[in-house]
Amino acid sequence: MTHAFQDYYSDDFSHCYGCGTANPHGNQLKSYWETEGETTIARFRPAPHHSAGSVHQVHGGMLASLLDCHGTGSATAFLYRDQGRTMGDDGPKIHCVTASLTVNFLKPTPMGVELVMRGKLQRLEGRKVWLDLFLSANNQVCASGEILAIALRPSE
Amino acid sequence: MTHAFQDYYSDDFSHCYGCGTANPHGNQLKSYWETEGETTIARFRPAPHHSAGSVHQVHGGMLASLLDCHGTGSATAFLYRDQGRTMGDDGPKIHCVTASLTVNFLKPTPMGVELVMRGKLQRLEGRKVWLDLFLSANNQVCASGEILAIALRPSE
Repeated sequence: MTHAFQDYYSDDFSHCYGCGTANPHGNQLKSYWETEGETTIARFRPAPHHSAGSVHQVHGGMLASLLDCHGTGSATAFLYRDQGRTMGDDGPKIHCVTASLTVNFLKPTPMGVELVMRGKLQRLEGRKVWLDLFLSANNQVCASGEILAIALRPSE
Repeated sequence: MTHAFQDYYSDDFSHCYGCGTANPHGNQLKSYWETEGETTIARFRPAPHHSAGSVHQVHGGMLASLLDCHGTGSATAFLYRDQGRTMGDDGPKIHCVTASLTVNFLKPTPMGVELVMRGKLQRLEGRKVWLDLFLSANNQVCASGEILAIALRPSE
């Protein structure tokens, strides 16, 4: 079975509400390569209580949260790849945090269907990674965004 | 007792995961005027499971979610005020949705303390409201942001 990017985070970084494997109350988002080195993908089905004001739509903050976790996971994967490394190798772990996140809500995101998040590398400079993000439902992009994720220094 | 902006949302818009009064599983964020017509304020104490990767910090997606709900609530209040109206009056209800949200994560947001969100009007054009947003912990701004909220047309 293919491991998700988040499965490789160290124990100290596994408590994330959005994607931490060690957070039983969290969303446990899992991100993967869709096309190795090009695009990443994650899937999530919101619960009914993750609604927007209307019960028929998903909460925008939840969408931002999903894109945030998929973005940092994807940035981490792109950094490993840029360094010619493999997640889970014996080298020092790379951990990314979000410096900035923008989400554009293009249309209401329907409740009751699986959401698909995708990430695409915009550019990479040292420890900084910029990604374009997309969130789709029923094969329609409902939200797009951009994240600047930064890898922590080993001491951080 | 002063009502929160969210207390005036109509029943159809009260299911928000972040601030809906009718969502028992949500965060039930409450926004108020801090200084009438100038700044708005909301307070929230995250639960331990709202952690970032580290248990000592709050999840960035949760911060985005708090700023989103405080932003739309604040935009609604500024729109009522701009029209010389009072929330809860007999006129047609104003409901705002988020068109775009940017959050800059300036420093780690500590877990275990009350977070304070503030909103300040940037500008207002018809149904569109731009606000500056700030999130503080221990009197330090940990995240800032900007929201573009748009009031739905009566038919939407």
